[in-house]
Amino acid sequence: MTATLGSGPSCPVPILDADRIQLGHGSGGKMSAALLKERFLPHLGNPVLEQLGDAAVLPVNGSDIAVSTDTFVVSPVEFPGGNIGSLAVHGTLNDLAMVGARPVCLTVGFVLEEGLDMALLDRVLASMAAAAAEAGVPVVSGDTKVVERGKADKLYINTTGIGELRPDFRPGPDRARVGDAVLVSGPIGSHGMAIMAAREGIAFEAAIESDAATLFPLVELLRETVGPAVHVLRDPTRGGLASALNEIAAASKVGVVLEDGALPVPGPVASVCDLLGLDVMYVANEGVLVAFVEAAAADAALAALRSHPLGRDAVLAGTVVREHPGMVVLRTGLGGTRIVDMLPGDQLPRIC
Amino acid sequence: MTATLGSGPSCPVPILDADRIQLGHGSGGKMSAALLKERFLPHLGNPVLEQLGDAAVLPVNGSDIAVSTDTFVVSPVEFPGGNIGSLAVHGTLNDLAMVGARPVCLTVGFVLEEGLDMALLDRVLASMAAAAAEAGVPVVSGDTKVVERGKADKLYINTTGIGELRPDFRPGPDRARVGDAVLVSGPIGSHGMAIMAAREGIAFEAAIESDAATLFPLVELLRETVGPAVHVLRDPTRGGLASALNEIAAASKVGVVLEDGALPVPGPVASVCDLLGLDVMYVANEGVLVAFVEAAAADAALAALRSHPLGRDAVLAGTVVREHPGMVVLRTGLGGTRIVDMLPGDQLPRIC
Repeated sequence: MTATLGSGPSCPVPILDADRIQLGHGSGGKMSAALLKERFLPHLGNPVLEQLGDAAVLPVNGSDIAVSTDTFVVSPVEFPGGNIGSLAVHGTLNDLAMVGARPVCLTVGFVLEEGLDMALLDRVLASMAAAAAEAGVPVVSGDTKVVERGKADKLYINTTGIGELRPDFRPGPDRARVGDAVLVSGPIGSHGMAIMAAREGIAFEAAIESDAATLFPLVELLRETVGPAVHVLRDPTRGGLASALNEIAAASKVGVVLEDGALPVPGPVASVCDLLGLDVMYVANEGVLVAFVEAAAADAALAALRSHPLGRDAVLAGTVVREHPGMVVLRTGLGGTRIVDMLPGDQLPRIC
Repeated sequence: MTATLGSGPSCPVPILDADRIQLGHGSGGKMSAALLKERFLPHLGNPVLEQLGDAAVLPVNGSDIAVSTDTFVVSPVEFPGGNIGSLAVHGTLNDLAMVGARPVCLTVGFVLEEGLDMALLDRVLASMAAAAAEAGVPVVSGDTKVVERGKADKLYINTTGIGELRPDFRPGPDRARVGDAVLVSGPIGSHGMAIMAAREGIAFEAAIESDAATLFPLVELLRETVGPAVHVLRDPTRGGLASALNEIAAASKVGVVLEDGALPVPGPVASVCDLLGLDVMYVANEGVLVAFVEAAAADAALAALRSHPLGRDAVLAGTVVREHPGMVVLRTGLGGTRIVDMLPGDQLPRIC
């Protein structure tokens, strides 16, 4: 309780120290990509890991499977529309669905902080179980570690999923083609802004709920309707729609043009983004997918998406062009364009 | 620095609060088993999860695979003989090997603490890569999250592994039979005591190094030599040999009798256990396996183990009996016996 005077700088100075991990390295944007490329791949790189799809595809026992891992550190662990348990199920199952795989099983690894309220753990487990049951996917292996108070933040959950692949349906981030239609399955920004609102204790007139959901049913509808005309699937989580589209443009060496105003943004999400100075294009989603589909199949694909409750507000958001490969631009109402870059650092840490 | 008098009990009173997670829940002993049974299985239980082997066995694309997940929170993250990176590879690959599976791939999920030294991260990744390369197993999917300073302890790593199973070799914890020989592949206690020594800054005349290693080569030797005569395989990690044997005795509904003095314990490990008042039977191992083998095949199995550097000190440690099912006893030199129970709580937290 003693004020210390003259003992150093009294205002926190942000120091960007290249020798240390910073929050931005976990953002899903440029810093994450650099960490992966400069630190992880030189040690662990191999052709399967370097596919860099939402899930890896590799043969086991002679047939291809999909595998994806994700650790969830979302803060707060409970938020409108879900909690870390349901999110950990949806997030990994969606990564499998985005390579066209039918999810078969999940593993869960818990890090629990000493002193964690058992009632909270129960709610997380119940929510996880409900999400897994709804998707019809069992948890087949689990692990629990406990760390001392102050060495975690309530709990972290890793989920790893395995899926079965069909030989005739293999969307991938490098398969976008000039002319493809860019479809977005629903309104963007709800998941990220629900977390932000819960974290900051912001009360809105219209509450924002996370839209986290299992997207595999939408993928099945697309496959059944237009099959191999689906070139790319992606769920724009960390880093938001902007980062997902930039990754696809780079992997496929094409340009993407989005039409301003085409993207559905719920009113309350738009208001809060304005209020906090956030760009909704960088806000994480967990119940939305982006599909790059052959132009001739776009109408049928859109109709298929709209036939499901999760996709009823699906839109044609843009197209793939030959110009500016690797770059995403937004065509504004007045005929101008602006570049939609990747998220540089950490707009929203610990969103998943 | 002010002494507070008369403000309450001055000696820390351990309070066992049933409504909160305690360190003992992560010990691998009785409290871990109770947490699993009372909290996790009611929500997530299903026949595959309830196999409770080191890895789950289930069909994907029509043939059986093995899947295992483990999160590593070892403290300190570097210790004589390895670091959290190599440990995370060995730990999960060994879990696959213990159900008889050939490891095919790994996923890795990192939780990094803001401010983590990049040089330490590099050492961990290098060690992880070396362990994976030695085992011939690629990392196929990865994820990195960053949490604020004070919300982790440097870094935590989840690894999940997938393995291929043969139809003719299916050891399992419930397959021990009366008369089986209990083989232990080498000296016990080195991993746990190396961590303890590093954590407590204890210097020994004879340094103790973690023996963490990939055990699949020993499993292959056993399979090639005695095949289906191998009934149970287990790597006695958290909770030590005592907990592993108790789990097997319970799952197989048999008794286990160990011969006192038969178990190899390195001299320095025995000395430090004495010094710290620890029982080596509860100390974690990462480079040791226990095999329950048909009596007629025991000599051949022992010879097979001893033909490999990891198993050169393998011993016959005990036998499986019909009496006292679910219980492990140690026959002492004087003809008496004592019960070797499961670890009740947390002898050694954060050992893996």
